[in-house]
Parts: sequence; structure tokens; C-alpha cells
Amino acid sequence: MSLVSRSTADGAWVVGLDVGGSGSRLAARRPGAPSSSVAAPDVTLTGRPVAIGPAGSDAVDVVRDLLARFRAHVPSLDADGVAAAAVGATGLASLVRDPAELHAVLRAALPPTAENGVGAVTGPMTTPTSSSTPRDPVLDVRPGSGPPTAVAADAVTAHLGALGGRPGAVVAVGTGAIALGTDLRDVWHRVDGWGHLLGDLGSGSWIGAQGLRAAVAAHDGRDNGGSTALLAAATERFGPVPAWPGRLYTRADRAQVLASFTPDVAAAAHDGDTVARQVLAGAGTHLATTLAAALVDGVPPLAAATGGVLAIGPLLTGAFRARLAVLRPDVELVDAAGTPLDGALHLAARLATEPGAVVGHAPWLTLGTPHAPPTDPTDPSDPTDRAPDPAPADPHPTEED
Amino acid sequence: MSLVSRSTADGAWVVGLDVGGSGSRLAARRPGAPSSSVAAPDVTLTGRPVAIGPAGSDAVDVVRDLLARFRAHVPSLDADGVAAAAVGATGLASLVRDPAELHAVLRAALPPTAENGVGAVTGPMTTPTSSSTPRDPVLDVRPGSGPPTAVAADAVTAHLGALGGRPGAVVAVGTGAIALGTDLRDVWHRVDGWGHLLGDLGSGSWIGAQGLRAAVAAHDGRDNGGSTALLAAATERFGPVPAWPGRLYTRADRAQVLASFTPDVAAAAHDGDTVARQVLAGAGTHLATTLAAALVDGVPPLAAATGGVLAIGPLLTGAFRARLAVLRPDVELVDAAGTPLDGALHLAARLATEPGAVVGHAPWLTLGTPHAPPTDPTDPSDPTDRAPDPAPADPHPTEED
Repeated sequence: MSLVSRSTADGAWVVGLDVGGSGSRLAARRPGAPSSSVAAPDVTLTGRPVAIGPAGSDAVDVVRDLLARFRAHVPSLDADGVAAAAVGATGLASLVRDPAELHAVLRAALPPTAENGVGAVTGPMTTPTSSSTPRDPVLDVRPGSGPPTAVAADAVTAHLGALGGRPGAVVAVGTGAIALGTDLRDVWHRVDGWGHLLGDLGSGSWIGAQGLRAAVAAHDGRDNGGSTALLAAATERFGPVPAWPGRLYTRADRAQVLASFTPDVAAAAHDGDTVARQVLAGAGTHLATTLAAALVDGVPPLAAATGGVLAIGPLLTGAFRARLAVLRPDVELVDAAGTPLDGALHLAARLATEPGAVVGHAPWLTLGTPHAPPTDPTDPSDPTDRAPDPAPADPHPTEED
Repeated sequence: MSLVSRSTADGAWVVGLDVGGSGSRLAARRPGAPSSSVAAPDVTLTGRPVAIGPAGSDAVDVVRDLLARFRAHVPSLDADGVAAAAVGATGLASLVRDPAELHAVLRAALPPTAENGVGAVTGPMTTPTSSSTPRDPVLDVRPGSGPPTAVAADAVTAHLGALGGRPGAVVAVGTGAIALGTDLRDVWHRVDGWGHLLGDLGSGSWIGAQGLRAAVAAHDGRDNGGSTALLAAATERFGPVPAWPGRLYTRADRAQVLASFTPDVAAAAHDGDTVARQVLAGAGTHLATTLAAALVDGVPPLAAATGGVLAIGPLLTGAFRARLAVLRPDVELVDAAGTPLDGALHLAARLATEPGAVVGHAPWLTLGTPHAPPTDPTDPSDPTDRAPDPAPADPHPTEED
């Protein structure tokens, strides 16, 4: 595998997908084509969110649908070829039955370039399984065909998008909150992302839950922490307090229900409600603590935060910056350069041009190329690094309305 | 309805049931029989916990099974008669489809005394519905027959058991936490009991969740709140941290899973772990705040706490007492006189001897007598008082091992 950069074939596509709990996106561009002199993707498609059923996530189906639409959208795709494709998916290691299925779907749906499609490859990852057999009969399924592929946890694509592919630490804040500190080679340290019952501190679900607790405290006449403003807002959204448990505990998407109250907390804080302001400041402080904990030895002191919750603004981000400056004054905090979709596209482009520079590390990032079997875990001794991402930590906005 | 006390017929039974998420119990005694000169119940049976399914709680089936076993246990029951029966049930207003079903099951399964069985009654509560038709063919189902009945939320029977039927406020602490302040006539003020996502502050599920968060904080290397002792204990109980989300978010009984860690938090605290001690002290403080908020105008300054979580001891109860003394120095805090089962038995005995003294207040307490239709809500103007108890606030021990 070459460590030397190469340019992609003229006109070949790189394809990135972001598959999450609040929606899915595909972006594709042709870096070598004259018309792609601007950075904007040539194609952007949006799809449905993944659904979680008894068998886990249906991310494979979401990806297959997006790819079929992409093929329909680009009639010249077979002629153009695909230089590489990458997916960032929520709940990768626990809710997606097998990342190899995602590799197989990508490879089955996307044509290789003349260059990367030369070799037919053996190995389980490149042999379509029954569940990954495309339903679209126009697809030409050839084991071993297809471009190089990368399948990453959404925490990884959020990282790549926010830091533009540089090593460092990124905290992604949506319905959940997860930080990943990595040198993109050997060190992959995850912090939080444990879901709304065990963590996700400072996330949309956390902010919403804190706001609802302040509302019931006011309802109950408790001595501490009540907010009549939040009670009024929550009553408007969810009805009278006694109805709330029935509208929450019966739902499978409880974290999303909690997070749906976050815009009300933000609005109350902007209107001056003290409790709401404390919740937002607490969220910022938690997120800084999470990010600081991801900056372990071996991770450069470069960091960013990404995700829609940050749009709440200075009431949250001010506390975030202040706390991070106390915990890690040496760290350079930069604005997020891009989204998780940008990160997926970056990953695909990197795979196309510098395949040897992309290092897989299961379950965070696995690679499938026509010239090599899929990567295995590189450091099985550290269970943290092999941590699944079982609580869908959606780094996207939680503001649902 | 007479306000004058009367004694129960010699040899007639009073029957109390406590139907909860961790198990169910029936106790029966004959206050007028010579052999019942001691306070101990003559019969005590234990049954299974209620199960929560798509249609709600199966409390009706649990009660029917316990009553059938009671009938089998007391061959003389039809001759003896039942002076009154009372049930305290978890999740009464939201998870039990219809409290009237519980009344109907009680009345169908239990024979009246010669005195209270005279009148046949009409009305929906005394007409068995299809779902309340006993499956045991030995039961003699006669609409309108049966003893006076009371169906109460478990918060009410916990209150009656803890204060021996006196007005005041009681906080019941198990997997959940709920306080009820009442004069047992007009004022019924509920505080908390909103379930593990919205409240239940200081409960077993709260303590367990705080302990698990301290464990993941240590695992992640967070700057604040981590406890390696709790991490070690939680790893022993639940396996490595990355497996926890999969062992928690897939479960329907998440509150019980969280609460199952409470004994480990207590053990770590007793071994001197600072974080664990802070969690227990925080629980005590929360419970005092909850109890104080239940002591609204019209409720005498008499209070108690009840439930297995209190067995953790002074690390929790010391903080509880200290905080209550600050919030309400005028309140007399007494030890709980009895359990929710004692409360159900007390309610049945009261209904037998002083029926006019028992005032129903839906959904907390509804009455069914052979001589009157079931009570309706007495104060529909206050939505708090009509609050359902949708989050099963089980006032029983959470120590599951």
C-alpha cells in the first residue's frame, strides 16, 4: 500500500454518507473534474433517519437507499467510477449488526474506477451476504468489485469534519454527547456518549431533562431548583404535568423526547430565567470536562466542539470555553471546520488520494479496499478503544421544531 | 352513610393487599374473633409483582390470583364473611386500566357478611366486566354482592401504614420516591414520583444512577465526580463499561436496573468512598425536600419516611433529618409505624368499622360499597390532586440481591 499521495482519476467520484438518528445525508464530488474547482459537493442527497428495531439499526437499508438514489441521480456513474466511499453511522458497534455489511453495500452499489477496480478480492468483507444483496436489480454485484471503503462511527466523522482531518479532540453534541481524542493512528480515547441514563452530560437530552426536572420542581412546590417559566413552557409542549410520564415512559425514543425540550430551555434562558441559564452553563461546563478528558497523552492539544446544541450560543459556549481554559489552558480551541458529512467526505477523499495514511481502528473506523482485507482492531488490549457506541450519540441538532 | 363506629361481625375478615412492582402481598385478619387478640394478621400470602405490558399493568390478574389462593387457604371464608377489603396498587391511575376493575374483582371474589351483603347494588363499579370475570369457576359471581372495598394508590397505603392512619405527610422511597401530604379528607398533595427521568429524587433508581455516573466518570478519566470504587463495583455487577448501555437501554425495567446498583453504592459509602457518601447524603437531602414540599397548608406537621432504601442507614437518614429540620423545624418526624401492606389492612379495617370516616379522592383512593355508588373525584378543580401515579413508585426495597 502506497504512502505516496496520488490524485484521483479525472472525473472519479468520492462519496461520503452521514447516517444518523435525526436523518441521513449523502454528499459526492469529483475532485479531479474541472467543474469541481469549488469546494462545494456536486451532489447532496438527504434520506431518512435510521430506525432502531429488535434486530438493531437499519443503517444498511438507509445506505442502500441513498446509494440507489445517487446512482439514479448520476447516470454517468459507471463511466466516471468511484475513487472511494465513506460512511459515518450512529450506534456503529452495537446497533449496526455488522460493519462489514455496510462495506459490502457500498462496494456492491458503487463502481470502481478503472484503476482501483483491477483486482478482485477475496475475504468475507467483500463477499456480499444475503442481507446485503441489493434489492435494486440494476446493480451489478461483483464480489471484489467496488471502490475502497471506510465505515466509521459518527464520533469519528464528526471529529474529521470539525478538525478537517487533523488529530486532536472533538466533542460532538446533539441528542447525546461524546468526545473522541485521537491521533488518528494509535490513540483513540472516547469520553461519554453513554446515553441519557448513564451520561451524555451537557447534551440536548441532558439539557431537556434538567429543564423538565426544574419544571416539575416548580409544579410540586419543591424548595430548590424550580422554574415557573420552564413549567409554563413544558406545560405548553407536553400538557399538564401528570400527563408527562405517560408521554415519556411509553416512548422508545425517550432521549429525543427529552431533547425536544432543549429549545424551550434556551428560550427561557434568553428571557432571563435563572434556572434555565444555570442549566445551559452547566451543560457547557460538562462538555468542557468531557472534551478535556479526551485530550489524553498522545493527542495534540487541538480541540473543537460540533453539533446543533452549540447554536444555543454564549450562555452555553461561554461556560464551555471558560471551563476548558481552566482545565486545559494549553489547548487550542478552534471552530468546527465542517459537519460530520464533511468528515465522511474528507475520509473518502483521503482514502482515494492517500490510502496508506488512513489507519483503521475497530470499531471506530474499519477499511475495505480492493487490495487488502478489512482492517482488524489494532489494539485489542484496551477495551476502551474497542468501545461500542451503543447509545446513539447523534451529533446533530436536537431542535426538532 | 353512618359516621358512628361499629364493630365488625364476629369472625368476619378484613383483607388488605399491596400490589407492587417488586412483589405483591395479601394480609387478612379477623378483628372480632377471639383468636385475633394479637395484632398479627391471621393470614399472609405473597404473590408475584405486577407486569407492565402494552395494555398497562396486570394488577387485576395479580389481585385475582391472590384472592383465589386466599379463598383456598380459608375454607370457612363464605361462612365467616368479609367485612371489608382494600388494595394499594402501584401505577394506579395510568397503568391499571380501570380502578373499577379492581373493585369488581374484590367484590366478585370475596363474600360479604350477612350484614353488609344485604343490598344488591347497581352501577358500573359493581357489575363485573368481561375482563374482571374470575377465571376460577368456584367463585360465585353475583353483581352487587361482596364487601365494601377500597382501591388506593400505593402512596396512600404507604402513608396509612407509616402514620397508622393519621393525617400528615409520608415519603415512600423504593425504586421510586413519592411523597403524599394529606388530611385524608380534602387535601391530597403529591410531590415527585415522576419516574427516573423526571424525578424520583433520592430514590433507589436515583442513587443507582448517580453511582453509575460516578463509575463512568472514573472510567472516562473525567475531572469531576469519578469513583474508582464504584467503577470496580459496577464492573463486577454489569461487566465492562462499554457493555453497560447494551445491558440497560434494551431493558423495559430500566429503573429497576439502576436501582439494583444501590446496594453497591451503600457498601462503597460504608467503606469510606467519598463520592458514594455524597450520593447518599444527596439522596437524603432530596427526600427531605420532597417531604417538606408535601406538607402544604391543611396537612398537620406530622411526617414519616418509609421504604427499604432507608435501611441504608445514617449516611442517608442523617442528611434527611438534618435537611428536614432546616426546612420545617416545626414538623414532628416519626418512625414509620408499618408497611404499605399494614396500610392496606388499616384501610380495610377502617372501612369495616367506620365507613363514614373514609373519604375517597380519585385517583388516590376510590371506594365501593354495597350501599353506595363508587366515589367520584371530590375536587376536580385541582389537577395536582387528581394526578395519576404513572411512574410506578414502588415503596419497597430496591436491594435485589
